Amino acid sequence: MSGLILHEDARSGNCYKIRLTAAHLGLKLERRNYDIMKGETRTPEYLRDVNANGRIPVLEDGGRFLPESNAICFYLANGSELIPDGHFDQADMLRWMFWEQYNHEPNVATLRFWKHFVGIEALSDAQRIQMTGKREAGLAALDLMDKYLVERKWFVADRFSLADICLFAYTHVADEADFDLEAYPAIIHWMERIMLMPEHIGLDD
Amino acid sequence: MSGLILHEDARSGNCYKIRLTAAHLGLKLERRNYDIMKGETRTPEYLRDVNANGRIPVLEDGGRFLPESNAICFYLANGSELIPDGHFDQADMLRWMFWEQYNHEPNVATLRFWKHFVGIEALSDAQRIQMTGKREAGLAALDLMDKYLVERKWFVADRFSLADICLFAYTHVADEADFDLEAYPAIIHWMERIMLMPEHIGLDD
Repeated sequence: MSGLILHEDARSGNCYKIRLTAAHLGLKLERRNYDIMKGETRTPEYLRDVNANGRIPVLEDGGRFLPESNAICFYLANGSELIPDGHFDQADMLRWMFWEQYNHEPNVATLRFWKHFVGIEALSDAQRIQMTGKREAGLAALDLMDKYLVERKWFVADRFSLADICLFAYTHVADEADFDLEAYPAIIHWMERIMLMPEHIGLDD
Repeated sequence: MSGLILHEDARSGNCYKIRLTAAHLGLKLERRNYDIMKGETRTPEYLRDVNANGRIPVLEDGGRFLPESNAICFYLANGSELIPDGHFDQADMLRWMFWEQYNHEPNVATLRFWKHFVGIEALSDAQRIQMTGKREAGLAALDLMDKYLVERKWFVADRFSLADICLFAYTHVADEADFDLEAYPAIIHWMERIMLMPEHIGLDD
């Protein structure tokens, strides 16, 4: 694994996950930025050469292209201490990563995207009518995380893993989607533990 | 791994994935059925004992509970031939499994759920206004799969893997959401390959 290139929009939490994983592993990434608001990931060249799905992030490694943020994190971390031992704990880590993509990201990240990137006034009717449902689902996701963390330091196997990294990415900017993180003290303490780790980097680093 | 219990609603494609994975592995599952339309996965007992997220499927193994369909498939298949060798191919398999949960299931499966389980006339305004977007996104997902399969027998590493199982589950019933699968000949041939395997079982088996 060398000459890794991350095709990204640096503002995306899904891209930040990968940089944070790489930081913990001491891996160097070359970063190529695309502005998703300008359609730079929907050009014929991008669809043909990088990702037919028209999305970032994509990791390029020796001419091979890997999309999907959580799969990229798994690729970088495979065999490292960021993935717990044991089949059950490995699956439990993936459980939280699938949950993040299904229950957390489409709500917390999408509301952040609509507010900060698209702009509320520019939303379509179909988007606008979904805001209440996404707000409720986002609150439910944060509530589930908070309750789970009351008696735990980390999500899986009593150790820091990709589950923590992938859930941290959009949780720590949930205030940008008007979620009040102060209402979730266990999440606050868990985020503090992550941010105090010596390898930690921020979204804007 | 013994005494495996699958908490499921048998009509769900997400539950079927797990039964299909188990069939390929020769694993026996005890099945416990819940009717999601009757709220049987939202009772206080279910939320406390089985899944705080109120969803099926959940795999129970020796008193431990694992939610999220694709994580369960990974748990059952870890170390088997259903997961390819090599870090890139393993991540590429997960790539398709994350893509399935983000780009395919919320569109194809949700439209099937709304039509066959909820009933179109019972949808809320917020659901109804999303139907066009979900139709377009479902068509885009099927189109991407079809183009990808034109030159390939399987999704990852030239072999049958969890990526095929997880994508098959809702693709093969996409007609129940009024998607015309005849428009995707490469998908049809791929589904035929899967259905001809001696270990194959159907959703209603």
